[in-house]
Amino acid sequence: MLGVCYYPEHWDEARWITDAQRMRALGITYVRIGEFAWSRIEPARDQFNFGWLDRAMDVLHAAGLKIVLGTPTATPPKWLVDECPDILPYDEQGRVRGFGSRRHYTMSSQTWWRESARIVTAIAQRYGDHPGLVGWQTDNEYGCHDTTLSWGPEDLRAFRDWLRHRYQSCDQLNEAWGAVFWSMEVADFAQVTLPNLTVTEANPAHRMDFWRFHSDQVAAYDLMQCDIIRAHSPGRWITHNFMGFVSDFDHFAVADHLDLASWDSYPIGFVEKFPFSETERNRWAETSHPDIAPWHHDLYRGVGRGRFWVMEQQPGPVNWAAWNPVPKLGMVRLWTWEAMAHGAEVVSYFRWRQAPFAQEQYHAGLNLPGLDELSPGGQEAGTVAREIAQLGPLPAVQQAAVAIVFDYASYWATIVQPQGRDFRYEELAFRWYEALRRRGLDVDVVRPGAPLDGYAAVIVPTMIHVTDAAQAALEAAGGVVLIGPRAGSRTRNFAIPHDLPPGPLHTLTQNRVIEVASLRPGLNQTVNGAVQGKAIRWRDHATTQAQVLARFDDGGPALTQHGKALHLLCWPDQDLLGSVMDLVCRNAGLTTMALPEHIRLRRRGDLHFFTNYGPEAWSLPEGFECLLGGHQMPAHSITVAKPLSKKV
Amino acid sequence: MLGVCYYPEHWDEARWITDAQRMRALGITYVRIGEFAWSRIEPARDQFNFGWLDRAMDVLHAAGLKIVLGTPTATPPKWLVDECPDILPYDEQGRVRGFGSRRHYTMSSQTWWRESARIVTAIAQRYGDHPGLVGWQTDNEYGCHDTTLSWGPEDLRAFRDWLRHRYQSCDQLNEAWGAVFWSMEVADFAQVTLPNLTVTEANPAHRMDFWRFHSDQVAAYDLMQCDIIRAHSPGRWITHNFMGFVSDFDHFAVADHLDLASWDSYPIGFVEKFPFSETERNRWAETSHPDIAPWHHDLYRGVGRGRFWVMEQQPGPVNWAAWNPVPKLGMVRLWTWEAMAHGAEVVSYFRWRQAPFAQEQYHAGLNLPGLDELSPGGQEAGTVAREIAQLGPLPAVQQAAVAIVFDYASYWATIVQPQGRDFRYEELAFRWYEALRRRGLDVDVVRPGAPLDGYAAVIVPTMIHVTDAAQAALEAAGGVVLIGPRAGSRTRNFAIPHDLPPGPLHTLTQNRVIEVASLRPGLNQTVNGAVQGKAIRWRDHATTQAQVLARFDDGGPALTQHGKALHLLCWPDQDLLGSVMDLVCRNAGLTTMALPEHIRLRRRGDLHFFTNYGPEAWSLPEGFECLLGGHQMPAHSITVAKPLSKKV
Amino acid sequence: MLGVCYYPEHWDEARWITDAQRMRALGITYVRIGEFAWSRIEPARDQFNFGWLDRAMDVLHAAGLKIVLGTPTATPPKWLVDECPDILPYDEQGRVRGFGSRRHYTMSSQTWWRESARIVTAIAQRYGDHPGLVGWQTDNEYGCHDTTLSWGPEDLRAFRDWLRHRYQSCDQLNEAWGAVFWSMEVADFAQVTLPNLTVTEANPAHRMDFWRFHSDQVAAYDLMQCDIIRAHSPGRWITHNFMGFVSDFDHFAVADHLDLASWDSYPIGFVEKFPFSETERNRWAETSHPDIAPWHHDLYRGVGRGRFWVMEQQPGPVNWAAWNPVPKLGMVRLWTWEAMAHGAEVVSYFRWRQAPFAQEQYHAGLNLPGLDELSPGGQEAGTVAREIAQLGPLPAVQQAAVAIVFDYASYWATIVQPQGRDFRYEELAFRWYEALRRRGLDVDVVRPGAPLDGYAAVIVPTMIHVTDAAQAALEAAGGVVLIGPRAGSRTRNFAIPHDLPPGPLHTLTQNRVIEVASLRPGLNQTVNGAVQGKAIRWRDHATTQAQVLARFDDGGPALTQHGKALHLLCWPDQDLLGSVMDLVCRNAGLTTMALPEHIRLRRRGDLHFFTNYGPEAWSLPEGFECLLGGHQMPAHSITVAKPLSKKV
Ligand SMILES: [Zn+2]
Ligand SMILES: [Zn+2]
Ligand SMILES: [Zn+2]
Repeated sequence: MLGVCYYPEHWDEARWITDAQRMRALGITYVRIGEFAWSRIEPARDQFNFGWLDRAMDVLHAAGLKIVLGTPTATPPKWLVDECPDILPYDEQGRVRGFGSRRHYTMSSQTWWRESARIVTAIAQRYGDHPGLVGWQTDNEYGCHDTTLSWGPEDLRAFRDWLRHRYQSCDQLNEAWGAVFWSMEVADFAQVTLPNLTVTEANPAHRMDFWRFHSDQVAAYDLMQCDIIRAHSPGRWITHNFMGFVSDFDHFAVADHLDLASWDSYPIGFVEKFPFSETERNRWAETSHPDIAPWHHDLYRGVGRGRFWVMEQQPGPVNWAAWNPVPKLGMVRLWTWEAMAHGAEVVSYFRWRQAPFAQEQYHAGLNLPGLDELSPGGQEAGTVAREIAQLGPLPAVQQAAVAIVFDYASYWATIVQPQGRDFRYEELAFRWYEALRRRGLDVDVVRPGAPLDGYAAVIVPTMIHVTDAAQAALEAAGGVVLIGPRAGSRTRNFAIPHDLPPGPLHTLTQNRVIEVASLRPGLNQTVNGAVQGKAIRWRDHATTQAQVLARFDDGGPALTQHGKALHLLCWPDQDLLGSVMDLVCRNAGLTTMALPEHIRLRRRGDLHFFTNYGPEAWSLPEGFECLLGGHQMPAHSITVAKPLSKKV
Repeated sequence: MLGVCYYPEHWDEARWITDAQRMRALGITYVRIGEFAWSRIEPARDQFNFGWLDRAMDVLHAAGLKIVLGTPTATPPKWLVDECPDILPYDEQGRVRGFGSRRHYTMSSQTWWRESARIVTAIAQRYGDHPGLVGWQTDNEYGCHDTTLSWGPEDLRAFRDWLRHRYQSCDQLNEAWGAVFWSMEVADFAQVTLPNLTVTEANPAHRMDFWRFHSDQVAAYDLMQCDIIRAHSPGRWITHNFMGFVSDFDHFAVADHLDLASWDSYPIGFVEKFPFSETERNRWAETSHPDIAPWHHDLYRGVGRGRFWVMEQQPGPVNWAAWNPVPKLGMVRLWTWEAMAHGAEVVSYFRWRQAPFAQEQYHAGLNLPGLDELSPGGQEAGTVAREIAQLGPLPAVQQAAVAIVFDYASYWATIVQPQGRDFRYEELAFRWYEALRRRGLDVDVVRPGAPLDGYAAVIVPTMIHVTDAAQAALEAAGGVVLIGPRAGSRTRNFAIPHDLPPGPLHTLTQNRVIEVASLRPGLNQTVNGAVQGKAIRWRDHATTQAQVLARFDDGGPALTQHGKALHLLCWPDQDLLGSVMDLVCRNAGLTTMALPEHIRLRRRGDLHFFTNYGPEAWSLPEGFECLLGGHQMPAHSITVAKPLSKKV
Repeated sequence: MLGVCYYPEHWDEARWITDAQRMRALGITYVRIGEFAWSRIEPARDQFNFGWLDRAMDVLHAAGLKIVLGTPTATPPKWLVDECPDILPYDEQGRVRGFGSRRHYTMSSQTWWRESARIVTAIAQRYGDHPGLVGWQTDNEYGCHDTTLSWGPEDLRAFRDWLRHRYQSCDQLNEAWGAVFWSMEVADFAQVTLPNLTVTEANPAHRMDFWRFHSDQVAAYDLMQCDIIRAHSPGRWITHNFMGFVSDFDHFAVADHLDLASWDSYPIGFVEKFPFSETERNRWAETSHPDIAPWHHDLYRGVGRGRFWVMEQQPGPVNWAAWNPVPKLGMVRLWTWEAMAHGAEVVSYFRWRQAPFAQEQYHAGLNLPGLDELSPGGQEAGTVAREIAQLGPLPAVQQAAVAIVFDYASYWATIVQPQGRDFRYEELAFRWYEALRRRGLDVDVVRPGAPLDGYAAVIVPTMIHVTDAAQAALEAAGGVVLIGPRAGSRTRNFAIPHDLPPGPLHTLTQNRVIEVASLRPGLNQTVNGAVQGKAIRWRDHATTQAQVLARFDDGGPALTQHGKALHLLCWPDQDLLGSVMDLVCRNAGLTTMALPEHIRLRRRGDLHFFTNYGPEAWSLPEGFECLLGGHQMPAHSITVAKPLSKKV
């Protein structure tokens, strides 16, 4: 199903009816509204102006659209900021981040909680049972623009409370942090400082707790909004639109109280943000890399416990990357189908019409700036709508054979203490995912501690701290378990485990890491044995009681096996990674299909969705019947096919 | 004519007479003094100490030198800053920019206006009718060291006043800025903030107005000084010494009330500042690129409505670039002649003698540090003086056949909203100018809206917002008009025109831009047809009703023609740019001369000034009689020649 | 002799005895303790808790270890910072540098002096005559983490006092600084500002004085600690552990009142810090460059007037560089021997046991994290201990034949006024040292003004300001004197000398520099004559009355000779540098041995210590008898040999 993001407050009221009718004509079912409209809903304190929104909802509903309403907390209006400046966030340099764009609040502010509750209550009371309303979105893109962490006085106050609750006594805090190290001990929680603007690096345990605190704040703040909404809007679901590659808080934890997950998919913008090589950036600049959107689809299907939307789908060029090319013809259609192949319930384009004013005026919409005229992306959306109708209902999504365990805390931990400048957790996880997908495999992304039953292979790119639950789940896993470098290297208190890394994973791996090396670009170490390639960026120097499948040149173990558990003791280059994944697949008994770099495959029931992200044509292997597209796949196209037999 | 900048306050009074006599002996006519001497003129509030300056002016005058007196407002003294700290500027990070160098004031401060008026009045009253005084310079290098924009409380106050005057009501401001977009609406002008330190980018309309406000401030502040000077110094002209590549304010607007323009020419220092390639930087490190100084000469001839000086001419190595090589032997002479070829009335060297102390002690002068001994550059200045005398009066400067329209507001607009990181307006304009000069053409640089009569070709590299006057002038132009990418893409309120770009230029071009692509380095799109080459950095995707002269590979129009108007819908690489300029010249009936990269030609009446910026020798084409230099031009030399016939 | 750094406060008291016994068993003689333990010694104001430290010292002493006690002033505890926030330093951006790591104090704070004296007195009184105590370390790594310079109100106050003392009157200050230049004159010392946050660069004379002031503060602060210690701890020596490549203060001046120098040797970490090429960084990433540690050994032998320790020796991978590889097997042994070859009295490893918590948990120790189990580096330390015993007492260190004059003030001066972005004084000195060592020479590093008797060659890479003492010493030197570019280019007041550079060195060189060129990467100038190669980065354009040994292409002198004095008028590339050093050696009658890039030689009496930093094997030349290691040197090894005859 298709949706669209719409801002009635941006357009003359006279145009709303035409807009709604043209949405329906294009094949749009859902419309998201309201998430930035606080200054219009409440132009001054307690002076609510609901009239326009009443009328907008009625018009949309009357046209047959289903409405998703956003709470407007991402954009507190100026009168509120002036009245309550304590809601403003601070950056790591200690400066106030002011009014004038969006997300200018810190969740640490009690004032902000009170004001948020007030506006959410007002809106939920007003519209909670509107017949056109089917669901809610809380706020907008938590954490976007580096807003998860804030470094102001309100944050310090709330952080001290969090620590007081967690450690109960300063002795326990001092012990947990190893604060004796540089005389950093405190005698009262009121002595705890923010971990910024120190002379040299702050204590990593201090920084890690500060990060956990903020991650907890996001979940708590979102739950507060959800509780209010649920009290006033029975029968409607609630989601939040997460932003891709914003890993500063734990999305699984936030989604625990949501009905479904959603995310904002800007495949091309992410190409500039993710640490691709320049060659890759140029290769994928106008199509996106074939695993960027799929990685997030698989992640948010996991975050949403099986249910997710794409709440914002890029419909053309955007405005916010360093460079913003026009997508190749066909890509808007391809991205939409890719989302549905991965189980998206709805793909909702951002936005209906390009705004000719303010910050995002270079961001394409389904319609040209200010006009009632479809953009190139709008025309592709129409094509998809027709194809959806033609293809009929899609089969249910099934559990994949392979799971990747994704751990937000490992992202924080490797930023808090990189040890090597290029040990980037998101990149590690993404590359391992890419390697699986290049082998034609479907992948589930799961959280640490999730049950791993039914997976032929479980991939743990790394997991810095291994919780009891995570340990138990991995030990209980029935399939092959591949564990990566640096795993188990920190305790809950961000210390080295007393029995050395991998700590709780020792039972599985039978390894013991006695030294670690981070390797500068240009340094590498050769690996030979059952797998071949090179270690780059990181090597664990370990002693082992497991079977050594491959060794470094100096004889040290590089890949070990103990029962089901493979342990890769380095960051692999592309060759080594491929070699290891081939071994995993063999051990797990998985059937693979070697795909070129521009082709991907995703299954949904017996439907096979082949996508071609390249300018080169490609032919499907024998044995498929095509339902959409053909065996010969032209550039930037999709083919939906069914296997003729069980052989594929 | 030659001049020199002199600082009597830096030297023992006993040396002044010798200095003045040696200036005259070297062939110097003009001497600029006084612009940094506030602490000596007024060592404490209202305790004026004019004696030394009286004597210095008398000595210089007695020696036959003509004096240009600078107002000392670029360097408010410490006692004033301590008394009135509200005059200090703020940087974009919100920090006060303190005392200790120069330009430490904001024009937004009312205190600063009052104090500026006080010191200018005192000096103008004292010296306004001094017989040695021929003209005035206001302040020094407005905008240098990023001082046009300031971000303090005084700036906010003055900005709000400017907005109140411009928009009259908050409703109009909100409407103009599209402030509804993210609930950025204000209910009172006192709610308007500075557009810095926001969470993500501030509203571009807000930023653009902030830039316009500061540009207006410069003009208003300068006018205030001029009014005072004119009241007390009848018969003397006034100029300001603009700094090259400081485009943060509109130089045309400031010069509207000046009698002539002047600029400070540091050809080598600019090589490090301008975004040249590393290859170009090394090629031109010791000579300067052959179009750097000429571009500015042509610009300031336009700014000065035909009249300009070089107020500061680099006489050897300087101190302020990242690297500061010694100019190649002959370059000081060449630069001086280049300036005169372009119409400079006076070339004034900075400075008479290298200062052995303080910030600029590595900045060469005509004399060695602290000594009465000519530097290598001083010797070249003597050569030029003799050559000027030998060559006699130069013919008047004539209107060129080609005009480039240079628009300071487009510089601001593309910084406010780059969309592609390397869309640099100054670079675009410079490269198009360079392409014309490589074809042996003289070029005028004119402001938007200037009459374009008599030009065979008018070049508009881009013009983001097209005013009514600019539109009218272009439509009235008799020659070929070449319009570049991104033209007409914003309204006065920094929004996309309601009929899409190029907005007001639609009549001329018959094009309509529906999407834009910024292209990262490495991405390009091939153009074929009447012109050939590649688009880099930027492409406008357009529909057209004009004749398509060249297309992109996907069939979209790249170069269109409608009557006299050519519209290039991309940023051209060097090949495409050359190809387009050849077409322009053919269409305009211009005779060109293909010059190597190190040779340039500039005409003044029938005098042809050939300059050789390279280490390679070069021979003039047949048909010239040499007045200075010869047909065989050695490295780093100049030849002044007359055509033997009308054929060239 | 070997030592180790130990933190009893980090471990259960029950483990102290085992630790002490295992230290002795490994061959450790000295143990340094206490330097970060303030929060345990004085958990709240005046509540001293000496019990644990009493017991720790007794345990260590009882085991036969000799104790070095550190004053804990590098880590003021939180209660003190809260009580006296005026002790905190400020960064150049004007921000307080807060509690939470270490070195969070400014020596400008009078409160801090009082508190420092209080804690040092308490500790010195308590332990001054402890029978296990042999010496003291003041504070820890002055200047580390950019803490020499501080930019707060206390610094301004103390700086004004320093200036008042130095200049007596504002007239003299204004004159010295050339403050008239931009009306920067002051009428009262209270008008002097900090030289940061100015609009453009501050006056270099101002900045240079600010740097001298802070350097003086370090010496004064350290002397204050020493005076207290000496009053309470008769018969014990005092040192400070200087940090390599921290040149922000004059180490010679601090050591004037110390009994011996010591430094902290992290050979691999420095590879990332020093401006090596990427090729060099990769070549030496896992071994260190062969001159990094030796340079410092030779420097601190000079700083310590012949006596120095390595107080902290890297024993494996560390935590603080951008990348931190594991050292190659054998390097910990090699580094230890290298230190002794250069005269280190003791090599003390940092640290006994890797801390599993806080900031340095990735920093290796002699034992694995938290365990009683030797790390790989710990095993190498044991090997060295056995080899020391086997080899017996080493001969005394003799004066080298070559001296390099190292001038901290030149480091400051070239940062204050780089003129060319890559004129890095430390790099210049290091490269000239490397060139000498590649010729098999031993080198002494001496301070400006030190007597130069007995040196066959004296090398002055540069010396920006030449004091009377330095001038006299160079003129009195009996050997060849090689003077580098930019020498003598500034007076004491940071001005160009009135007779032009090299100022006081004119008598020696007979040269006069009239212009200088800094050359961007890619620019160079060829040198031919008695030496060959290229000038890069810098060239002095000079007139000369000396003999010209080599010239630039334009005929200007590149290398001149006047009697014993050679003057190289540029920054030499590697070829030119080698060529010049060969000439120096010939002129000085020095015997050289051309060594490959990975081999070095250092003599101590008749013992020759050959070190192999490469993976390639190497054979000693004929004529040596090996005492440790063999003629065939494998990768990463050391050979100690005696010449069979006098021929080598
Ligand atoms: Zn969004
Ligand atoms: Zn200037
Ligand atoms: Zn240390």
